[in-house]
Amino acid sequence: MRVLISTIPFADNDRQPIELLEQAGADVVLNPLGRKLKESDLLEIIPEFEVLIAGTESITEQVLENATRLKLISRVGIGLDSVDLLAARRHGIKVCYTPDAPSPAVAELTIGLMICLLRTVQIANLRMHKGEWNRFFGRRLSEVTIGIIGAGRIGNRVIRHLAGFECRRILVNDINPLLTLPLHPTCSIESVSKDTIYREAHIISIHVPLTRHTRNLVTAEDMSIMQHGTLLINTARGGIINEQDLFEALQSGHIGGAAIDVFETEPYDGNLGNLDQCLLTAHMGSMSVDCRNRMEFEAAKDAVRFMSGAALESVVPDEEYDNQEVES
Amino acid sequence: MRVLISTIPFADNDRQPIELLEQAGADVVLNPLGRKLKESDLLEIIPEFEVLIAGTESITEQVLENATRLKLISRVGIGLDSVDLLAARRHGIKVCYTPDAPSPAVAELTIGLMICLLRTVQIANLRMHKGEWNRFFGRRLSEVTIGIIGAGRIGNRVIRHLAGFECRRILVNDINPLLTLPLHPTCSIESVSKDTIYREAHIISIHVPLTRHTRNLVTAEDMSIMQHGTLLINTARGGIINEQDLFEALQSGHIGGAAIDVFETEPYDGNLGNLDQCLLTAHMGSMSVDCRNRMEFEAAKDAVRFMSGAALESVVPDEEYDNQEVES
Repeated sequence: MRVLISTIPFADNDRQPIELLEQAGADVVLNPLGRKLKESDLLEIIPEFEVLIAGTESITEQVLENATRLKLISRVGIGLDSVDLLAARRHGIKVCYTPDAPSPAVAELTIGLMICLLRTVQIANLRMHKGEWNRFFGRRLSEVTIGIIGAGRIGNRVIRHLAGFECRRILVNDINPLLTLPLHPTCSIESVSKDTIYREAHIISIHVPLTRHTRNLVTAEDMSIMQHGTLLINTARGGIINEQDLFEALQSGHIGGAAIDVFETEPYDGNLGNLDQCLLTAHMGSMSVDCRNRMEFEAAKDAVRFMSGAALESVVPDEEYDNQEVES
Repeated sequence: MRVLISTIPFADNDRQPIELLEQAGADVVLNPLGRKLKESDLLEIIPEFEVLIAGTESITEQVLENATRLKLISRVGIGLDSVDLLAARRHGIKVCYTPDAPSPAVAELTIGLMICLLRTVQIANLRMHKGEWNRFFGRRLSEVTIGIIGAGRIGNRVIRHLAGFECRRILVNDINPLLTLPLHPTCSIESVSKDTIYREAHIISIHVPLTRHTRNLVTAEDMSIMQHGTLLINTARGGIINEQDLFEALQSGHIGGAAIDVFETEPYDGNLGNLDQCLLTAHMGSMSVDCRNRMEFEAAKDAVRFMSGAALESVVPDEEYDNQEVES
């Protein structure tokens, strides 16, 4: 079976996922362009492959129509906004993913970004590299009200890490109102509306998938009810916080700072890069060696299971299909 | 009594420390130059004051000789490397400090800096601000061996925070070999020699005071036995890691990255600012609003106690005098 691994990097730290596939008889082709594939690239390459081990590149209806031999998409990661799930279903293509593997790395990076934003580390560093000495006052995690939007695998871990920093008040919003939140003896962890988070939190972190319900979840209107100087973090998916609205709110100073790891279009080269108060990273949330290895292994193993006719371990559940954005 | 408050900022967030002093009858003068005082500034200003509420400016023997009316130095902070304690004793000047107040803020910033260094956030941010997209692989705290030099008030807090991140191995060196280290069910927290830390740790953080025993504690020779790519953090005091040696080890790539908040000369404007891999902040470790307020309050309260003839609460202990650097 011909297997295309489009995600990059792949097996940089450990060749085993490729070896697993080859031992199972796969003819493995690594991304031939060495960069994130565009729709046109994938359209051209996809027809000869039975299995696609995918990154975050767009797998559109048109790509899937060209993918005449494709039987399985195995996503290295948790986000499914890049895959037209309903079109895949129509073409009889199964989709699996690795929902648990990225969580520890994303949650830990989020804590680091929170502390840096609260202490204005990103601006201090830029200034020091220009020879300018400015001592910024900051706040500890325990001094602020923290808002968490999305308390799934990643958001839940963020909350648990935060509770170790003597935090006093964490406000949580999740699509599932019955979700069990962690308990803590000295930290109040409350389930609230998004509006309550917008009005009361000093720092807000996003941990929801990008779906038709969450695109432009945070717009200028939402930011307008936030407190002056609120800090925003997005390590989830680009498009959840409206980028242009964020730019304007940062520029006006109403939003005091932001840490953004994910973008509407990646690679990103937009105007947030003109703002010192916006800490930017290149979709690196899941990129710890251990989590990335686990993601690659799990994606490769499900591909191997598929090739041998065994049941897949991490089939994408039906609710993900229901949440998918319907393209106009 | 005339009280000079030389540290800046002071009472920016809360005027109460000044009010306390004034209610006790103090004639309070805030730093008239609005910047860290030089020895020559202090020499000129000091003669008319009975009490000095001090920052990190140098309070040398010569300053103290001019300080003919001075009876008390109340340090806003924990470090005493800036005060010639033995000269103060000879002149009959008492010295008190605020040893507990800064710890939570310094420890929390240290965790943020550790996560950022491990994930190469500082380089990603600089590149993204130039429109360059580079996805860096990183490691989680649980993937590395962490070295902590100095397990006093701050180092001990850092260790306790780390244990909440599923860390597996923390190596600790302290001047007191009998120091009780925190216990953790899944994390090995071991008391070891400095050399063991240098050889085995992937990330090393400094939490010792600057004394005659710790100046140039970490030199080129020490760095040479560290693993290639080791990460270094100094939120303690400048001069403990030799700055020029660090510059060269970073430039060669042997030291993979560093986060430096404290410098041999502050304000800092040296060559570390030419290195993207060196994350720089402006002596901001203790500068969270809550910790800074507590430091200012405690320093002001001891000054008020002194003015009313009551016993001081935080007199600098004798061992600090013994550890003091002897100027050649």
